Amino acid sequence: MTKVGVLTSGGDAPGMNAAIRAAVRNGIANGMKMYGIERGYEGLIDGDIYEMDIASVGDIIHRGGTKLQTARSKRFMTEEGLDKAVMMIQNFGLDAVIVIGGEGSFKGAATLADRGINVMCVPCTIDNDMGYTDTTIGFDTAVNTVLSAIGNIRDTSSSHERTTIIEVMGRSCGDIALYAGLAGGAESVLIPELPFDLNAVCMRIVQGRNRGKKHNIIIKAEGVNIETNELADMIHERTGVDTKVVVLGYLQRGGTPTASDRLFATRASFKAIELIRDGASNRAIGLAGMEIVHYPLKEAIEIPTRPATDFLRLIDVLS
Amino acid sequence: MTKVGVLTSGGDAPGMNAAIRAAVRNGIANGMKMYGIERGYEGLIDGDIYEMDIASVGDIIHRGGTKLQTARSKRFMTEEGLDKAVMMIQNFGLDAVIVIGGEGSFKGAATLADRGINVMCVPCTIDNDMGYTDTTIGFDTAVNTVLSAIGNIRDTSSSHERTTIIEVMGRSCGDIALYAGLAGGAESVLIPELPFDLNAVCMRIVQGRNRGKKHNIIIKAEGVNIETNELADMIHERTGVDTKVVVLGYLQRGGTPTASDRLFATRASFKAIELIRDGASNRAIGLAGMEIVHYPLKEAIEIPTRPATDFLRLIDVLS
Amino acid sequence: MTKVGVLTSGGDAPGMNAAIRAAVRNGIANGMKMYGIERGYEGLIDGDIYEMDIASVGDIIHRGGTKLQTARSKRFMTEEGLDKAVMMIQNFGLDAVIVIGGEGSFKGAATLADRGINVMCVPCTIDNDMGYTDTTIGFDTAVNTVLSAIGNIRDTSSSHERTTIIEVMGRSCGDIALYAGLAGGAESVLIPELPFDLNAVCMRIVQGRNRGKKHNIIIKAEGVNIETNELADMIHERTGVDTKVVVLGYLQRGGTPTASDRLFATRASFKAIELIRDGASNRAIGLAGMEIVHYPLKEAIEIPTRPATDFLRLIDVLS
Amino acid sequence: MTKVGVLTSGGDAPGMNAAIRAAVRNGIANGMKMYGIERGYEGLIDGDIYEMDIASVGDIIHRGGTKLQTARSKRFMTEEGLDKAVMMIQNFGLDAVIVIGGEGSFKGAATLADRGINVMCVPCTIDNDMGYTDTTIGFDTAVNTVLSAIGNIRDTSSSHERTTIIEVMGRSCGDIALYAGLAGGAESVLIPELPFDLNAVCMRIVQGRNRGKKHNIIIKAEGVNIETNELADMIHERTGVDTKVVVLGYLQRGGTPTASDRLFATRASFKAIELIRDGASNRAIGLAGMEIVHYPLKEAIEIPTRPATDFLRLIDVLS
Repeated sequence: MTKVGVLTSGGDAPGMNAAIRAAVRNGIANGMKMYGIERGYEGLIDGDIYEMDIASVGDIIHRGGTKLQTARSKRFMTEEGLDKAVMMIQNFGLDAVIVIGGEGSFKGAATLADRGINVMCVPCTIDNDMGYTDTTIGFDTAVNTVLSAIGNIRDTSSSHERTTIIEVMGRSCGDIALYAGLAGGAESVLIPELPFDLNAVCMRIVQGRNRGKKHNIIIKAEGVNIETNELADMIHERTGVDTKVVVLGYLQRGGTPTASDRLFATRASFKAIELIRDGASNRAIGLAGMEIVHYPLKEAIEIPTRPATDFLRLIDVLS
Repeated sequence: MTKVGVLTSGGDAPGMNAAIRAAVRNGIANGMKMYGIERGYEGLIDGDIYEMDIASVGDIIHRGGTKLQTARSKRFMTEEGLDKAVMMIQNFGLDAVIVIGGEGSFKGAATLADRGINVMCVPCTIDNDMGYTDTTIGFDTAVNTVLSAIGNIRDTSSSHERTTIIEVMGRSCGDIALYAGLAGGAESVLIPELPFDLNAVCMRIVQGRNRGKKHNIIIKAEGVNIETNELADMIHERTGVDTKVVVLGYLQRGGTPTASDRLFATRASFKAIELIRDGASNRAIGLAGMEIVHYPLKEAIEIPTRPATDFLRLIDVLS
Repeated sequence: MTKVGVLTSGGDAPGMNAAIRAAVRNGIANGMKMYGIERGYEGLIDGDIYEMDIASVGDIIHRGGTKLQTARSKRFMTEEGLDKAVMMIQNFGLDAVIVIGGEGSFKGAATLADRGINVMCVPCTIDNDMGYTDTTIGFDTAVNTVLSAIGNIRDTSSSHERTTIIEVMGRSCGDIALYAGLAGGAESVLIPELPFDLNAVCMRIVQGRNRGKKHNIIIKAEGVNIETNELADMIHERTGVDTKVVVLGYLQRGGTPTASDRLFATRASFKAIELIRDGASNRAIGLAGMEIVHYPLKEAIEIPTRPATDFLRLIDVLS
Repeated sequence: MTKVGVLTSGGDAPGMNAAIRAAVRNGIANGMKMYGIERGYEGLIDGDIYEMDIASVGDIIHRGGTKLQTARSKRFMTEEGLDKAVMMIQNFGLDAVIVIGGEGSFKGAATLADRGINVMCVPCTIDNDMGYTDTTIGFDTAVNTVLSAIGNIRDTSSSHERTTIIEVMGRSCGDIALYAGLAGGAESVLIPELPFDLNAVCMRIVQGRNRGKKHNIIIKAEGVNIETNELADMIHERTGVDTKVVVLGYLQRGGTPTASDRLFATRASFKAIELIRDGASNRAIGLAGMEIVHYPLKEAIEIPTRPATDFLRLIDVLS
């Protein structure tokens, strides 16, 4: 009987639970034994592994976070940790491991693949920084969470005729900022992929005020190389407009996953099981348009991210 | 100076305001004069047309409904109504009309095109029943609204160990039911595109109960050819399980549009203006993967819908 | 050692889980043994009773529905059922039972009290139909759910210049309709406590239209003695305005409880345990202003409901 | 004809728009002329005052922020500014001014009263720091916003087995922290009214971890006299548990007001108009239980705040 482990790794993202559920249930439907591995590669090294039945993934499809816990594992980066992980996989007789996580987790999976372990990778991170797939699981939820925050902040910002800088996540990728900025009607969006022009940002504020605009929302990705409070001070100094800062932080990681994220997670994990059943190995599963697709893992992780920088032109014209 | 009219037509959908905003603002940025036409083809016939400036579309990107009002126009179906509409377009000197709506609205636009009017069509309907585009504006919001309703109903349904049938919209298209059903973990989904098997539905309920499941959610698309209360009675009779009905109705049309719907609406209308500026005519704008695309209007409306019937297999295995 | 049972009964309401949690945890903190009774009086009769520890109520404070399930028990209405229930309480050695539910559940508790069982009653129903307490647990959540639905429906209603009748719950009490109607800016609110004047309703619609209003929202409590679709037909006939119906139904019972409902539930159950510890018996716990109060159960259930009919005057003036 | 001005002042709060709407509409219904004053006392000094009709407050009851803008006015604190404000009131012939705001705004109103201006004060602040009324308008919405943030953060916090400190608003009042902490199941709540015991906070974390708890949420009111990041470092150092910080900031001021806040705002402003009509002067309007009440302004502002410190005992036992 085929035995398959499932783990979630790296920063958590909404949709991880939907991915776990689909893997476990489709695995069992295909006659496999399914095993949950706790806390990502940490739990793999420690052998925190247990069988999961259909009921164990009941009532989680709509929950944020991950039932299996997640972690960033330093030990897994060492030869010794990797050895232990491989040994545990062999001890438990796992024929394949489904890795649900982001870029770092995929690289970890690739090192397992080098040791002869069959890994199937499901792209789950709010950062949308994986080039081989149209989008990543959790990104849509994070963008909608930021959008809802923009809504709240616009109320108060326009009541006080203020500028507000909202700092969002995304590590070195500007997509959360770009998507939320364009969808939220932000006046300026600052991303790590491109240098920003403080003068242009200030000009928009001044022109907006002259035109009678009551609020200015600036979305700044965390990867942009300037401290947010410092930026606020510089804007205040140059424009005279009261400028506040909101750092959304971990808010963006949680919350009920959106339909889109649940569907992608469900379909991707469902496919992971089919690939294992059909004898495939070491694939990265992704979305291309409406279709679930898959690529050789090592090729997939080499494809560079394509941030939506063309949104900047629209933001410029429309806000 | 190029003059462009904008109208919303047919059933309203979340994202219509974002589409209006992007058209008006990008039009003005391209040196055009922009005109709002009220109540779709009704207002066109009546000449309810006025110029719109940048401020007129401020603070609407996040609002459901449509600032321009919408209607289904019977008069426009007549030769006389159509003549009047064409005359109004000529009176106001409109070089093009951006039509934001669904299938019926696109067909209306095609009749205008036959009379020599340049029309640009933006697909806006919650039904997702347009084959030439991956998705339609408003669909993502509607699915998420249904998902949130499923969340509420699951609480009470499982507290009472009940079966609940949730009737959703979609006219002759099952996509709202399929997407919300798969994402919401529904036990059964009934769609108009395929015959349904009452026996199978009842078996799932009985087997679920035997397995200890506390709730059963059935999503039924409005297009399915059986009255929902009647279906509830039949299920109750065959399974003995208390079966309730919730008809979501117009709830599904409103609400703040999701990020996805706002982005598609914004990008599609932005493109509509660029097409007009570049001399194109009579195009249907759509989404293909991550890209905004456009096709000749008449070809676009001939492409049949592709409902996500393959989701049924996943629903069967996973619930 | 004091042993205390907890049950939820009647229609479920958001906040029941918060009430269960507070009872179990405060009971244990006071050195009691806490027992969950499943499906209300049904489970009591059947002896579906088990000990609950601190962890058993973890992660439920924010969940709708009830972890203990609920039911309306016909058997409990019979002498035989009541005998069995009393016997089970004695078999398990329960010194007191905390009954979380509405009016019917309180009456059931009173019959237990007549047989010498110590009952502590926590008012949990979305209907707000209990006169001895300022409000009931679940009511605030239900009103906010209706409010959010009104928001969605206003979007689409005003886009089509329609009248929409929203039918809400509340059994014979009009409070959900009154609170949501006043807070939602509804044009008319129909409640079972007062006769309604079809003419006045129609006049408001016509006058609103003449004044340029784009939408009309009528909130109708389910207890009003006219079929909602029939009412829509009558309004359409008299005013010529397109009139739609949305029946919110079971949507209103579910959902994450609001802060207010969670706090009342938590404080009320906390107090129930203190009362048991302090030797009190047969009390109905309620809210008076900011304070948690308690009354003799039999007196409490005699106090008539005071629906907020004075809101009608405000609705009349403000909409 | 009686002329009445309306202004919103100080930090904005959800419900201000509902208060403006009820004042304007009930004023007009009582035959008064209603005037909006922009940006609080700033606009009063500058004479930014205009007549408002029924339609001017349409479609705002559900909106956060304030249509009239708000500000904190330094000029109003000076003799010269005050003189100008009084002169403007006389110039426009205002018989009374409705002041919608918090403690500082009420004090400003009292100085106007000293100059013979009739002021009616409606308590609108998210801080709940006004002792004469059970609650303030905006507080319920803010608490629910924090609760929703706690939900998001609990997901990610428990997925990583982390402690998260959430810093909330409230100035020198701990009520937002206390209400959200008790309703959200937080492990510890730190408020400015009481010294906190770092040791106790750390013990809870360690004991929780030993008991198998996956997350720890600490709510810290902004008024607590320690920098939040510093607190996180101290906790991390003492417990070894990864400790993150989220500062909710201006998120808490915005958002659609809850039913409760809209109703209180509506009823309070409605009453303000009635009081003016009936010849009363200089009253602070409040909530006592279910009733709208009013007190002499100067007495009202002397009543000390009663923070819900008794909630701490429940938090201790229940988390």
